[in-house]
Amino acid sequence: MTSRETITCKAAVAWEAKAPVSIETIEVAPPGPNEVRVKVVATGVCHTDAYTLSGQDSEGVFPVVLGHEGAGVVESIGENVSHVAPGDHVIMAYIPECGHCKFCKSTKTNLCSTIRATQGKGLMPDGTVRFSCKGKKLFHYMGTSTFAEYTVVADISVVKIRDDAPLDKVCLLACGITTGIGAVRKSCKVEAGSSVAVFGLGGVGLSVIQGAKIAGASTIYAVDVNPGKFDIAKQMGATHFVNPKAHSEPIQKVLVGMTDGGFDYTFECIGRTDTMRAALEACHKGWGESCIIGVAGAGQEISTRPFQLVTGRVWRGSAFGGYKSRSELPTLIDEYLKGEVKIDELITKTYPLDKTNDAFDDMHSGKNIRGVVLYE
Amino acid sequence: MTSRETITCKAAVAWEAKAPVSIETIEVAPPGPNEVRVKVVATGVCHTDAYTLSGQDSEGVFPVVLGHEGAGVVESIGENVSHVAPGDHVIMAYIPECGHCKFCKSTKTNLCSTIRATQGKGLMPDGTVRFSCKGKKLFHYMGTSTFAEYTVVADISVVKIRDDAPLDKVCLLACGITTGIGAVRKSCKVEAGSSVAVFGLGGVGLSVIQGAKIAGASTIYAVDVNPGKFDIAKQMGATHFVNPKAHSEPIQKVLVGMTDGGFDYTFECIGRTDTMRAALEACHKGWGESCIIGVAGAGQEISTRPFQLVTGRVWRGSAFGGYKSRSELPTLIDEYLKGEVKIDELITKTYPLDKTNDAFDDMHSGKNIRGVVLYE
Repeated sequence: MTSRETITCKAAVAWEAKAPVSIETIEVAPPGPNEVRVKVVATGVCHTDAYTLSGQDSEGVFPVVLGHEGAGVVESIGENVSHVAPGDHVIMAYIPECGHCKFCKSTKTNLCSTIRATQGKGLMPDGTVRFSCKGKKLFHYMGTSTFAEYTVVADISVVKIRDDAPLDKVCLLACGITTGIGAVRKSCKVEAGSSVAVFGLGGVGLSVIQGAKIAGASTIYAVDVNPGKFDIAKQMGATHFVNPKAHSEPIQKVLVGMTDGGFDYTFECIGRTDTMRAALEACHKGWGESCIIGVAGAGQEISTRPFQLVTGRVWRGSAFGGYKSRSELPTLIDEYLKGEVKIDELITKTYPLDKTNDAFDDMHSGKNIRGVVLYE
Repeated sequence: MTSRETITCKAAVAWEAKAPVSIETIEVAPPGPNEVRVKVVATGVCHTDAYTLSGQDSEGVFPVVLGHEGAGVVESIGENVSHVAPGDHVIMAYIPECGHCKFCKSTKTNLCSTIRATQGKGLMPDGTVRFSCKGKKLFHYMGTSTFAEYTVVADISVVKIRDDAPLDKVCLLACGITTGIGAVRKSCKVEAGSSVAVFGLGGVGLSVIQGAKIAGASTIYAVDVNPGKFDIAKQMGATHFVNPKAHSEPIQKVLVGMTDGGFDYTFECIGRTDTMRAALEACHKGWGESCIIGVAGAGQEISTRPFQLVTGRVWRGSAFGGYKSRSELPTLIDEYLKGEVKIDELITKTYPLDKTNDAFDDMHSGKNIRGVVLYE
């Protein structure tokens, strides 16, 4: 059933940077052409939301409805929408898939750029917004804005999924878990028997570990300054555990020494340029590949001696694990439902919408791997 | 015929850094176990020789017999040498191939490390030298030391080649040409139809162009501040020509603008860290790969924003084009003899041994792509 009515609902609004979100009643306009309005059922709370809320994100605009790890049910569709209908279960993807741009046509990337320009400015593809609160317009966020009971997104950002997938779990496939598993599988194509090191044991790092285990890696080093995370890392498949604070030498030197020359693959899941360098330099001469997943602060740069690359190391990155959202994400849901991919273990706590700030606090304090906000 | 006699012959000796080489009579000891003495027939003069002679090479030791682009004929062999015999035609490879270390066993690298430690110190694998002059010992260089009428090298550094290959031409396969063609084929695996940019039009850069043309690249941009090199670049296969000095904006921005987003593959063949960055940033979002071939000055570092990698660019390097010397180099010689690989066009001038300094001068002044020193 399509709708031309504005919906009034609750949302966590970020009025400004460096302040808690505020639970407000907002108006959500009906979807325009090629747009979909979704009743959000669950959304993860991710470090990227916190990064934008902190004011460090150079693309951050306020006031805004944050949130980008959401799953829900299509409430209504605008004109020209054919691939989903009201009632369909969906995940909202911050990297859309239009299917016809040069990025979508390439088998090497998932970075569909069709609505990149407007999405980066917090706008719908037509340059306007669908949210308002107290007479003020609210910006969209990452093309998803899942911190609201209802959201409007571009149709190319909507991934139709099977009805039997629990939305309060598979919402995490909208970001962290897919990012981690995909970096292993699709960006680096880690072979069975490989040695792997993972820097940073948040939701993404733990998902890299899971992906490496699924890929058949022989050794998986978990590296974090918080040894409290080693238990869950072990549960996800890590075989060795290293706390850089327990060593006086640079961690890359320590790791190269422990492994007779370094790793086949390393993954940076923190967003620090110094650990990005360490991860590269912990790679084995001749073939080691390092993958940057973490997002560094604005203006920060990575550096190394070019000799590191000339002697065979490769430096690459990964966004959303290289997964094309609409065509490839559903396969991960199948794997989850078959028990091959773990999600539940990464959900530390759930919250109602009006406790969204608690979810941020628990993430910052290290209590949560992933907190999930559940809507009515 | 093996020999236990010391040979007296002529050589270009580098007594010290930052000085011309000196033509001297030297003594070349017979080959020890697992060593081969070669009568050098021809050797290219490469920027790497000049780099070491300039004193910038942190591994440089003096006095030394430089030269690493040499071909010749086996004069005698030491004990335990089985894969070559006196009279065999050979190329001397600065990256050996022992066949049994972890690097040789890997299909991903050519960086055999069996004699790396001693080679880097200018010594034979047993820690001694085979050259002396006026009572002084001379160091070896890159495991090859081809600026002498006779040289002694480790057997794993000797590539046996077919007898009908002209040694005064195929000597260049010992470095620059193989490095350039291999970076395209083996390190980056450039596909037909790709767009390619080459930074720096010396012997290596021109060989990258040749390699890209053989690979079926659709467009090949030649980038150099010296437009005088564009003619030979065109001859090797370049389709577009860009002089960064003719533009006020950063060259990566210029190139991205000229190509609707950048290149599928870029190659840095200069050794400058600023052009290494430019080459990476001239790659296309989503899939562009940049390969560092040039050797930067000691202590210099490359840098970029990690966003460049997270959005799909790949930074790698290549040494000796990824070619395993003994098992793979002979295929390039076959290609040359079939007319598929060009060498002759890159040889600008030949010199007798006592004009080795002229070959350096002509290289520095830009007169030569490659000068080749011919021995009697």
